[in-house]
Order: sequence, then C-alpha cells, then structure tokens
Amino acid sequence: MITSQVVVYSQHGEPKDVLKTHTYEIDDANIGENEIIVKTLAAPVNPSDINQIQGVYPSKPEKTTALGTSEPSAPTGNEGLFEVIKVGNKVTNFKVGDWAVPAQVNFGTWRTHALAKDTDFLQLPNPDQSKAKGKKSGLTINQGATISVNPPTALLMLTHFVKLTPGKDWFIQNGGNSAVGKYAIQISKLLGFNSLSVIRDRPNLQELKDELNSLGATQVITEEENASRDFGATIKGWTKDTGGEIKLALNCVGGKNSTGIARKLANNGLMLTYGGMSFQPVILPTSLHIFKNITSAGFWVTQLLKDSELKTKTLNQIVEWYEDEKLKDAPAIQTKFEQGGEKQLHEVYQEAVANSSNGKQLITF
Amino acid sequence: MITSQVVVYSQHGEPKDVLKTHTYEIDDANIGENEIIVKTLAAPVNPSDINQIQGVYPSKPEKTTALGTSEPSAPTGNEGLFEVIKVGNKVTNFKVGDWAVPAQVNFGTWRTHALAKDTDFLQLPNPDQSKAKGKKSGLTINQGATISVNPPTALLMLTHFVKLTPGKDWFIQNGGNSAVGKYAIQISKLLGFNSLSVIRDRPNLQELKDELNSLGATQVITEEENASRDFGATIKGWTKDTGGEIKLALNCVGGKNSTGIARKLANNGLMLTYGGMSFQPVILPTSLHIFKNITSAGFWVTQLLKDSELKTKTLNQIVEWYEDEKLKDAPAIQTKFEQGGEKQLHEVYQEAVANSSNGKQLITF
Repeated sequence: MITSQVVVYSQHGEPKDVLKTHTYEIDDANIGENEIIVKTLAAPVNPSDINQIQGVYPSKPEKTTALGTSEPSAPTGNEGLFEVIKVGNKVTNFKVGDWAVPAQVNFGTWRTHALAKDTDFLQLPNPDQSKAKGKKSGLTINQGATISVNPPTALLMLTHFVKLTPGKDWFIQNGGNSAVGKYAIQISKLLGFNSLSVIRDRPNLQELKDELNSLGATQVITEEENASRDFGATIKGWTKDTGGEIKLALNCVGGKNSTGIARKLANNGLMLTYGGMSFQPVILPTSLHIFKNITSAGFWVTQLLKDSELKTKTLNQIVEWYEDEKLKDAPAIQTKFEQGGEKQLHEVYQEAVANSSNGKQLITF
Repeated sequence: MITSQVVVYSQHGEPKDVLKTHTYEIDDANIGENEIIVKTLAAPVNPSDINQIQGVYPSKPEKTTALGTSEPSAPTGNEGLFEVIKVGNKVTNFKVGDWAVPAQVNFGTWRTHALAKDTDFLQLPNPDQSKAKGKKSGLTINQGATISVNPPTALLMLTHFVKLTPGKDWFIQNGGNSAVGKYAIQISKLLGFNSLSVIRDRPNLQELKDELNSLGATQVITEEENASRDFGATIKGWTKDTGGEIKLALNCVGGKNSTGIARKLANNGLMLTYGGMSFQPVILPTSLHIFKNITSAGFWVTQLLKDSELKTKTLNQIVEWYEDEKLKDAPAIQTKFEQGGEKQLHEVYQEAVANSSNGKQLITF
C-alpha cells in the first residue's frame, strides 16, 4: 500500500479557505494491467490553478468522490513532473523510472502519488536516459515540472498560426519580460525569427534589456518608444534591413498596449491574445481591421494541446532544446514538501499561493 | 466628338472647396479596337467618395493629366451605372446598349461619359435583356448604380468567411437599419440563415421593427435588450429552437456595441468589422478571445472585390435576385443632371454631398 496525499477542494473560494489535504491508500499490489503508479517530483503554482480553485476559470476538473473523499471534491494543480514507480502488465509506453507529465489538464498535480491509466501521461526522458542518448544535459526538475504551459505557449504562438520567414520576418510582443515572453524571445532566436519586445520603462531598464538581449532578443523597446510616431521610423528601418515584415503580435497585456503593438503589424497581420495582465480589454481601431486587414484572435494552450499528437510533438521539441542547452527555463522559488512532516500538503500550497507575488512557486517532493 | 464632363480635384480638401468640372472631348470616330465608350446613367455619393476627396481614405485614384487637366487631377466617385454607346472592333464582352459598372474602384464615376478599355467594366443586363430572358423584372437605375458596394458587402460577409448552416445558424449585427444591415437581413433570409439585428431604441421603434421584419428579419432587438443579462436567456432560447449557433457577428458601430454583439457569439465565432459609425474602436474582452476563441477581423469590400472573378459571381447573384424581385434596394434621393444646364456637374455633386445627411444621394444623367 502506498499512502497518497492530494490537495482537494469541495467548494470554490480562496485557496487559503477551501483547500484540504485528502489522504488515501493506493493498492500497488493490485495494479490494473493498463495502469501505472507515479510519484510526484515537483508541481508548480500557476495563475490558472488559483483561478480554478476560485471557480473563475472556464476549464475545471469534475468534483467526484473517486478518491474516497466524503464530499464530491476536485483535485488541484495542472502542471507537474512525475516519476513512474510501477506499471501494469500490459503497459508498453512506460517503464519504471521514466519521467512523465499529465497528458491533459485537470489531472490534479498537487499530490504525492497517483494511480492512473497509462494514457493519462506522456513520457519525458529522465536525466540518465538523456545521458544515454549522448545529450549534453538532462532535464532539470524545474524544466520538467514547468514544461507543459509556458514553453508550448511560446512555441505554438510563433509557429502554429502565421508563417514567419526565418532571417526576415518579425513578431512583436508586449510583456516581453514575462515567462512566456522570455521563452518567445529564445524560441524565435532558435527558429531564426526576429523579435521586437515591448517592456515597461523602469529604473533598471538597461539591466532588463541586457538580460533579454542575452536570451537572444533582436530588439527591446519601451512602451513609450512603441507609442512614439518618431520612433516608428526606427522600427520601420529595422524591418526594412531584414527584408521582412512584422506579421505577428503576441498580447498578454490588453488595453492601449494591445492597440500599440497591433499598430506595428504589417497588412494582413495577426495579433494573438494569451493574457490580459492590465485587466483591460483588447482595443483595436476600426481602420486597422478594415484597411490593414489586421485580425485579432485568442490563444489558449489548454484548448490547443487537447490534440495529444500536437502536444507530444511540441514537448519533444522543447525537451530537445533543453537537452541541447539551447533554452533556459524560467527560475522558480522551490520549497520541498516532507510527507509526514510538520506541514500538511495543502498548507504548503497555501503558502506557495500566498508567495506567488514574489515569483513562480515550485513545490518539490 | 463627344463632349464629356468629369468632376475632379487637384488637391485634397472638403468637396465644397476642391471639386471642379473638367470638360474634354472624346473622339468617338477613332475609338481603339479594344475600347468602349460609355455614357453615365447614374452615380451615387458614398461616404468613401467624400473621404477620398478629403484625402483620408486609404484607397485613392492617382492624380494625372491624362484627361487634359492643367494640373494633375483625380476623378471622383467610385460607384455608378453606365450604358455602352460605342465599342471598338475587337471588343467581344460588350455591345452597344449593354449596361455596365466599373470593374474596379477609383475609376471616377461622377462624369457624363468615359472612354475606357473593355476590361475596365463588367456587364450588367439592361431591362430589355432581362425581359428577353423571361425575368420578372429588369434592374432599375438605382439598383444598377448602387450594386457594387452595399449588396456585395452584405452577401460576402454572410458567405465568404464562416459556413452558416441554412435553417439552423444565426448571425448577429449592429446597425441593423443601415443600408448594408437591410441587405444582410434580406440576403440571410434568401440563404436560409437566421438574423438577429440590434438597433438603437427610438420613439418609432415598432415601426422600424415592422419594416425590418417585412424584409425578412428573424429577430430585431434593441441595444438595451442585447446588453441585458436577463434577455440573454431569451436569445439562447431562440438559437436553441433552431438547433443552431450564432457563428458570425457583423459590426459597423464599434465601441461597447461591438463588445455587446461579440458576447453573443458561440465558441469559435467570428466578428467582422466593416464600419465604425460610433468612431470608437472595436473592444473585445480578453476572455472572449482566450476562452471562447472569438476572432475579430476586418471586411473591406474594395479589397476583396479586386478579385474580378469573385466580383462577377457576386454581382450576378445580386442581379438575379433583383430580376426575380427577391431583393429590395435601398431608396436614394435622385437628382437629375442636365448637361449644358444652369448648374455645373461639380456643383450638383457638391449639393448632393451637402444633402447626404438626409439620405443617400443619386445623381442621374
């Protein structure tokens, strides 16, 4: 028997009020022939996890009594890295020691162990496997545990909608120093696209510019520069020099800032919105729609990665870049959970949620 | 020799200030083998004509001295109906007596006659030709002179982007009582689609509703009803009754009104913006983009109908509906121009521009 713990909620509300730890036994001696048992290596806190608990996120797990809770409850957490510790007789896609991530969201990753169907997970190489393949590097725990949301968001926005010509074309993005923004800078560099990242002015502006440049940014400008008519000529000069166009805009801010990056798009350009950090709507002048044929669309990685073939292909590409040390992950603040220690699992996650404003929180096991 | 007059401008400005009449001779005895000579039957004033003269419209004719003006000048007017009065030896697509419309915008339709290449025009049936085909009706002068902008805008927005299932699916539009709005109501009825038209509340609301219903409107609601959460259930009931979804929104207003109709779209719906009567930008909540996958795009009939095959097909469909008396044109206020009379041609158009607030103006010849 394996004693498993999972963070659940039976009603929506603030994480500090509604989370509970549910403890139950997994009978590892009687595993089904197509089942696997995994133990958690790490699972982060994402904003969507919190919104799901609050009940304001459109995708959420069902509340059931399947785990033996007294009330129908839902498991928490959507992203995480697991190690396979037991496999059923007929399982062919996993062996003990493999690393794995949930194939879909809503699996519930804030837990110590899980009994699952072999189709519930996708395999990732563990460091020994990467080494055996002759790779420079194996995945770190942080890379594996945060591989399912932000890196695929950046990669798919850059490749799945608009064909950018390597060496020539550009994309523009606001929130250039967000986690996704930094992946977009790195991945565009790897794919040969030019990036134009818009960031807020700040005291340590040059420091941030240096950081983004070191990740491979083509150009980094401030919101004021982006809004300035004079500076527009500078940007036109840059695109002219490469013989390309700004065909894609990535918006995670909204409001005037979304208007500002949409204005920089060439005719027939596309703006993808994947976040709304300003809590303002997307604002698009009528003339951009009609006379420049600018299209504004949404991007939701959760929806797109329901296509498991696409998810596998996308994760494999990101794994490869990590193994080749071509991609840097976003750092997280790591806290280790000790099963049977002083704090219960839900308390550890409640603290992590509370500390989220200090940076991305990763709980390791 | 044919004495031709054409309204021109050599510099941009208000029509009352910059329009002039240029008179020149067309040598009809020496017509080129692929040329035709047309005389104007009627040419309306459209808002885009005025914006073109003002210099604020992105598509405009070149200023040249081709017509013999002392300064480089551009001809005015983009829509109009013409009769072919002479054809060159090798012209096969026109014969004398045919009706014709310019194949492209920027031809300059505010004129009495034109010498043109046979490829500059598309043929429309004159009333005798329609009668000879056994049709119920021939085109009226107004139908022919206003066939190139508003009816194709409505038809193409309804058919060129989203596949609506006849008998089931819906579109929603604001500006339901605009000229395009009324064509969209009629054409959707002809194609079997359900229409949901949003109009401003007004003293004679029921009168306008009756008018739109008589054109074939499925449902007509006010902006307040569209914004009301309670009324949303009524709309959901309508779409449920037909087993369809609201897959398309047509926006010619912008601002909050564009948000209001976008909110009524089903998942994966498309909003097309073809006008901005409120002078407010299109405003789209981030969540509609991300979680409902709503896309916002522009529609510009001028751009789309550069494809002359599509233009021919589209006009032929509209002609057929007019001949079958299935489509009602938007009425215009008609003024006859007398060549050699008291008023010069540009003065007649200046008055028409000034009177445009009273309704669409059509100058007949």
